[in-house]
Amino acid sequence: MSIIVLRLGHRPMRDKRVTTHLFLAARALGAEGAIYSGVRDRSVEESISEVCRDWGGNFKVEYTENWKRTIREWKKGRGKVVHLTMYGLPIQDVISEIRANPSEKLVVVGGAKVPPEVYHLADWNVAVTSQPHSEVSALSIFLHELFQGRELYREFEGARIRIVPQERGKKVIRVGEGETEDLSPFESI
Amino acid sequence: MSIIVLRLGHRPMRDKRVTTHLFLAARALGAEGAIYSGVRDRSVEESISEVCRDWGGNFKVEYTENWKRTIREWKKGRGKVVHLTMYGLPIQDVISEIRANPSEKLVVVGGAKVPPEVYHLADWNVAVTSQPHSEVSALSIFLHELFQGRELYREFEGARIRIVPQERGKKVIRVGEGETEDLSPFESI
Repeated sequence: MSIIVLRLGHRPMRDKRVTTHLFLAARALGAEGAIYSGVRDRSVEESISEVCRDWGGNFKVEYTENWKRTIREWKKGRGKVVHLTMYGLPIQDVISEIRANPSEKLVVVGGAKVPPEVYHLADWNVAVTSQPHSEVSALSIFLHELFQGRELYREFEGARIRIVPQERGKKVIRVGEGETEDLSPFESI
Repeated sequence: MSIIVLRLGHRPMRDKRVTTHLFLAARALGAEGAIYSGVRDRSVEESISEVCRDWGGNFKVEYTENWKRTIREWKKGRGKVVHLTMYGLPIQDVISEIRANPSEKLVVVGGAKVPPEVYHLADWNVAVTSQPHSEVSALSIFLHELFQGRELYREFEGARIRIVPQERGKKVIRVGEGETEDLSPFESI
């Protein structure tokens, strides 16, 4: 099932890091790409494309000037819309229905004030707890539940850097250079 | 199982929002409290305690000047240490062992460069994917896996505000005032 994340109302000064975290989490946990509205922010786009160049995969970030049109066109031509909001129905009650629906999903994640229309355009308003926390957290648990943990095994094509999991320490392979780098030798401890 | 999050190396300018998101996610997903090192930041502490006052529960944030001592004392007197890092062992391979261990857990989450010693002090170095993403995401999936989704049903004692999940819209109850507030009537749409 193909997933695109739509981040609403990005504000470069305030949201730069949170939006970057959101997009990186989206990529790592199996979304295909992201679209954002608000103020265009090339530095976020560049951070993400640098990560993709080094770590592989085809995650794409696009900007939209008109989120409403983006949602409407998605509904007309591509698939369904999930809106993550603390006011929605508990994820544990709706995730199987969403998972069972085979269409592509646009996962809408609010920034600052979310316009009421989003609640109406969404096919599902989904809450990851009804407590205030973080869109990064909500999206991550949503994707993890949607993919039922299979996203943790995902590999990224064309990666230049790969980590070899270690009980202690850091082992990084620079692909192509046939070079294994131990970034922190720990001898000093 | 009682969980405390230790956030390393907080930098007020750069990390304010990400650390706030991290602590809110920790609270919402079942941790008991958080400790942070780096530069003390009263505004983060106040944001969290405001949330606790309104939304209930006993989540506490503390500051430590010496994270190393905090970890060592934890290991001596209270329990085990989990360090979340993209270089560690895959969560799917170690979570049952961590879950089966009944002791309290200190979950260490890096900020900027994590000192090598953390990898050695940790009882488990755990990776939520070996891809770069977000400490908020990693912590959220870790807690969700640890508690096996039961954290989503958690209720918070003494809450003044409570959300009534809705398919569409926002329904908020101000507890004690016996008042139900519909924050966005939507009639205008």
